[in-house]
Amino acid sequence: MTETFALKGNICYSESKTRIKTVHGYAVCSGGISRGVYESLPEEFSAVPVYDFGDSLIIPAMVDLHIHAPQYAFRGTGMDYELMQWLCNAAFPEEERYADEEYARRAYSVFAGGLRRGATGRACIFATVHRRATEILMEEMEKSGVVSRVGKVNMDRGAPQGILESAQESADETVHWLEDVKGRFSRTAPILTPRFLPGCTDELMHRLGTIREKYDLPVQSHLSENPEEIELVGKLFPQADFYGDGYDMYGMFGDRETHGGSVRTIMAHCVWSDEREVKRLYENGVFVAHCPGSNLNLSSGIAPVRKYLDAGIRVGLGTDVAAGHSDSLFRTMTDAIQVSKMYWRYVDKGAAPLRFEEAFWMATRGGGEFFGRVGGFDTGYAFDALVIDDTSLRSPRELPVPERLERAVYLSLDITGGIKAKFVAGSRLF
Amino acid sequence: MTETFALKGNICYSESKTRIKTVHGYAVCSGGISRGVYESLPEEFSAVPVYDFGDSLIIPAMVDLHIHAPQYAFRGTGMDYELMQWLCNAAFPEEERYADEEYARRAYSVFAGGLRRGATGRACIFATVHRRATEILMEEMEKSGVVSRVGKVNMDRGAPQGILESAQESADETVHWLEDVKGRFSRTAPILTPRFLPGCTDELMHRLGTIREKYDLPVQSHLSENPEEIELVGKLFPQADFYGDGYDMYGMFGDRETHGGSVRTIMAHCVWSDEREVKRLYENGVFVAHCPGSNLNLSSGIAPVRKYLDAGIRVGLGTDVAAGHSDSLFRTMTDAIQVSKMYWRYVDKGAAPLRFEEAFWMATRGGGEFFGRVGGFDTGYAFDALVIDDTSLRSPRELPVPERLERAVYLSLDITGGIKAKFVAGSRLF
Repeated sequence: MTETFALKGNICYSESKTRIKTVHGYAVCSGGISRGVYESLPEEFSAVPVYDFGDSLIIPAMVDLHIHAPQYAFRGTGMDYELMQWLCNAAFPEEERYADEEYARRAYSVFAGGLRRGATGRACIFATVHRRATEILMEEMEKSGVVSRVGKVNMDRGAPQGILESAQESADETVHWLEDVKGRFSRTAPILTPRFLPGCTDELMHRLGTIREKYDLPVQSHLSENPEEIELVGKLFPQADFYGDGYDMYGMFGDRETHGGSVRTIMAHCVWSDEREVKRLYENGVFVAHCPGSNLNLSSGIAPVRKYLDAGIRVGLGTDVAAGHSDSLFRTMTDAIQVSKMYWRYVDKGAAPLRFEEAFWMATRGGGEFFGRVGGFDTGYAFDALVIDDTSLRSPRELPVPERLERAVYLSLDITGGIKAKFVAGSRLF
Repeated sequence: MTETFALKGNICYSESKTRIKTVHGYAVCSGGISRGVYESLPEEFSAVPVYDFGDSLIIPAMVDLHIHAPQYAFRGTGMDYELMQWLCNAAFPEEERYADEEYARRAYSVFAGGLRRGATGRACIFATVHRRATEILMEEMEKSGVVSRVGKVNMDRGAPQGILESAQESADETVHWLEDVKGRFSRTAPILTPRFLPGCTDELMHRLGTIREKYDLPVQSHLSENPEEIELVGKLFPQADFYGDGYDMYGMFGDRETHGGSVRTIMAHCVWSDEREVKRLYENGVFVAHCPGSNLNLSSGIAPVRKYLDAGIRVGLGTDVAAGHSDSLFRTMTDAIQVSKMYWRYVDKGAAPLRFEEAFWMATRGGGEFFGRVGGFDTGYAFDALVIDDTSLRSPRELPVPERLERAVYLSLDITGGIKAKFVAGSRLF
């Protein structure tokens, strides 16, 4: 980790939400941290080893703010349902299997291996309610080299018995898990994970709020994904002004300031957030995990991401496997752009479609901020990088680097063997 | 071509629009034609060579009803435009290059190679206005093994000078081309290709109508893709009742009965067809090439495919490279399903989302009908097949064949090396 080296190639990263900087030159890493990007190597780095990737593209490894590890087993299947039906028919039955530690080990080894090979450098991951399986997932993620936050799911209603705990039990198991994993891992850490409001009683939410306070934990959950779900929340939490307010009441909707830092909150989806919720998302600094692939597959709708970006809300991308069928953040970027065009066409002509640069920003810096200084090659940022070889994409003429980057993403080079090397926090995964 | 053989594996093909038949057994081919699917090989075929593909999936090779060969060169780039801007900034400048035969040879060899490796067994292809380049494309397609209809584009207005001809010139060159290619190829044949109404004067349309009659040609063009385009058609063809009527006036909107058969018409997009146009599409037996990926990328909208299917209109899929960024029909299938869900959500709650089986049907039988008895393994159908090895998709448990098929499509096995063998009209491409 104290090693210093440079990668050479066509380095591309977001300078701002609307601009991608491209440099044919060197990205320098020292002790896992970026030391800047240079057209020619400065004197102080002249002796460092250089990995020359020729004409390849070098981009930040990407950040997946929302993915369900246990659902990876059935990714790409069961795509003809809406949310509540999908949970009952596809997600919950699979999640019940993770009571079996052997199954969990096998499944999570496949999952972590998949993430290792792909474009994801960092991820926020849902496990299941099972404490032991959650620890197994953390072990597998630690081995993968991908940096992660992993959450034991909390849920005390609205699911099959095999994946329910009582509020007391759920809280106790959470504490047990937190104590178990304390100090055990360097690349993975826990995140508090109430499944979603319809799956949690007031009592459970209250207990989790207390745990968050004691352990200084970030939080991840789901928000305003589907109209039917929102209606249900209205019935179950009449005391909440709106869905997000239900989390906020228990201190689980935004940053919690800690000694020298803050622990954060991610809310996946936010497809149907009303004005009050949008305002609160902004005020509380909540991260929206935009999951366009999932929102398409479950017929949920289209999140108004243009509005969120304009409002200064923190937005990153989530693959949401397995409601999202693919763990590819390249695919998720193109999904985000495509659905924003339909939002413009059918919902709001004032909401300009997302441009490629903006999707790239969300996949790198937007989500990266959750993990700190992540998602760029600016000096001081964590050194997370993908080396993309696009020579498999034949063309009768040379394309400029920005077009090659756009093409690499649209044509899914992350799943077709185009990622030739991957670094997370300065460590080379392959 | 007189060879008889059988493929062994998990054979999957559409029995109807809503049902996929799966048989672990044998698909028999004789002389390029399917002789049926069997759980065990009947006595009459007991001596034929069997290619055993073990647990692989065997499905019909797919049909791409709409793709632009010259645009393949910039696929996956220039995705931040709407139709008319995209034509001017991305498509037309590239198409001008095909005046250069060397460039055309290089570009079309890349294009044909791409189709050969992918899921496409048959395709209807736009070239450019250039006669020689169109013939080069046909030579490359002939070599590829993929069966195709290729069209020299006709356009005499609304484009840069380099890709315009006068009406007279355009008609003359078309006849020249038709005479040139007569009897030259076994796998490719010409199709009349007025680019779209805004690009053709009355005079040109009239001349093309005459050519169609003389040469018994099928037709391909674009229809009602974008509101701005439709408005332009209204101005340019005030005599037409609606966009499609403008084609119909010149005999280029539907089947033309010929000696012992019929030559057909494909209209790409049909996103904004009004009731009169929908009625005419049905009455005239026009094939709709549904191009959901393209319609997303160019912010065009969502074609009401559920309505077309319910109305008995012929519908197949088109990748529409390069407004569609990928030549993958697997991707196009999932795009079709996803956009139908947004159509249901935002436009018409009466239009049920497409199911996987329906998308599979459109990609095989729906588009296949354009080529005759194509898109299934029923006795008498052309023997077009893909062998899909999905072992790269690891899972902790065994999935049933229908789920494996859905997963193979959603997870793009066609572009990740999953196609292990491909047959078109009984010939093995690899």
